[in-house]
Amino acid sequence: MTSFEQLQQCSPVALRQSIAAGQYQGHTSGLGQGRVQANIVILPGDWANEFLRYCTLNRQACPVLDVTEPGDPFFRNLGAAIDIRHEVPQYRVYRNGELSESPLDIEHLWQNDLVAFALGCSFSFEQPLLEAGIRLRHIELGRNVAMFQTNIDTRPTARLSGKMVVTMRPMKAAAAIQAIQITGRMPNVHGAPVHIGDPSLIGIQSLDTPDYGDAVPVEADEIPVFWACGVTPQSVVQASRPPLCITHAPGCMLVTDLWNSDL
Amino acid sequence: MTSFEQLQQCSPVALRQSIAAGQYQGHTSGLGQGRVQANIVILPGDWANEFLRYCTLNRQACPVLDVTEPGDPFFRNLGAAIDIRHEVPQYRVYRNGELSESPLDIEHLWQNDLVAFALGCSFSFEQPLLEAGIRLRHIELGRNVAMFQTNIDTRPTARLSGKMVVTMRPMKAAAAIQAIQITGRMPNVHGAPVHIGDPSLIGIQSLDTPDYGDAVPVEADEIPVFWACGVTPQSVVQASRPPLCITHAPGCMLVTDLWNSDL
Repeated sequence: MTSFEQLQQCSPVALRQSIAAGQYQGHTSGLGQGRVQANIVILPGDWANEFLRYCTLNRQACPVLDVTEPGDPFFRNLGAAIDIRHEVPQYRVYRNGELSESPLDIEHLWQNDLVAFALGCSFSFEQPLLEAGIRLRHIELGRNVAMFQTNIDTRPTARLSGKMVVTMRPMKAAAAIQAIQITGRMPNVHGAPVHIGDPSLIGIQSLDTPDYGDAVPVEADEIPVFWACGVTPQSVVQASRPPLCITHAPGCMLVTDLWNSDL
Repeated sequence: MTSFEQLQQCSPVALRQSIAAGQYQGHTSGLGQGRVQANIVILPGDWANEFLRYCTLNRQACPVLDVTEPGDPFFRNLGAAIDIRHEVPQYRVYRNGELSESPLDIEHLWQNDLVAFALGCSFSFEQPLLEAGIRLRHIELGRNVAMFQTNIDTRPTARLSGKMVVTMRPMKAAAAIQAIQITGRMPNVHGAPVHIGDPSLIGIQSLDTPDYGDAVPVEADEIPVFWACGVTPQSVVQASRPPLCITHAPGCMLVTDLWNSDL
């Protein structure tokens, strides 16, 4: 095993080599020297084709950074070629929508009709927000971001449909205005917020009880700011129960060679 | 037949009804009250799936505004539902990459595996440029925009690959800087330019002999500004000779209900 401190010094390529060699199987937060980290969804045949249509119609929630050819296990547009069978620290395998295994490698599961998708993630826009001096309370508190199921319909395809999941970050008004401008310039990582202010207007009953992640308090002089969240496609896909779906394990993302400023 | 002057008064919905009723089969420039006009590509089965992967990887040249489910002839995300078999003034049918027919309606050609794509078009960003006071010489001269084949590789899929086609607009430096900012905010209609200045750096021998459209002179105090062009996907698709491909006829676009500011 390689230590986390050693891995923090690694380039993205060296980090992925360590992961592929079985030397690391943990979360990727703080690793990869600030390069883009991606959510992974892998689907067979016709499900993959439909999922790409769904992502195209719902770009704010499902920003596709790269997609492979059917059966080709390599991402070819994220920097150096990335073998998706080995270079994620830990995977989740769902069969008919139910979690079945959490392997460290998926070579044994590879099929010649599988298509892999790399989806943008809000980690990529948090860095420019922090660099602009915007405080992100969940990071200061050492918590996961708060995520909520909303009543906002996504655009459906034949079998894929559902409500949008959002992340919430509390901000003072001036910071919220600045954050809207900064993230509006990053359409490949969820883009501008989908809502600000009263959570009940998008079907959220209470900010104290997030559906995923950790609760983060909103102060009296703050406004909650809501962004489309990459959990949306994962929850929509599992709800439609495809025969096979492989994803990264939560927090164990694919570290790419892209810079956040490329997005 | 309805006169062009009558059609100019029409809402997009009424215009499409006239077109579907066979009352108009001409170009759409100046029609639809400034709403978004889209390039159309229709492909069968597996070619459609691959084309969507190609568009995803080459978003600057191929910005997908909507995609239908296989066999469903309706666009459902461009405003009111649009029946793609009837609501374009004139179509082109290519078989194995060769032009075979130019029908006014494609109901007789519809198949249950066809998928229709609506792609963004540079008309949509010319309006905000004009509104910002930027002069567009080809419009002042009443010419088509100049288009060039470049040596810029697009990102390939298994069967779809080729060089990027670009449009060129000559501008003074201050206008070019402004245009870069304005179009950079419109990723769904080609986004920021792909090149400025010396055309030979992207493989263009002479600006006097465009590969498509009309030549437009560049004055001594101007710089040529190059944007990715929606002709790219059409030229790439025909070069790979799919058994069937249906597009709009040049200039006879689909008029949607979307506003340019939505992009």
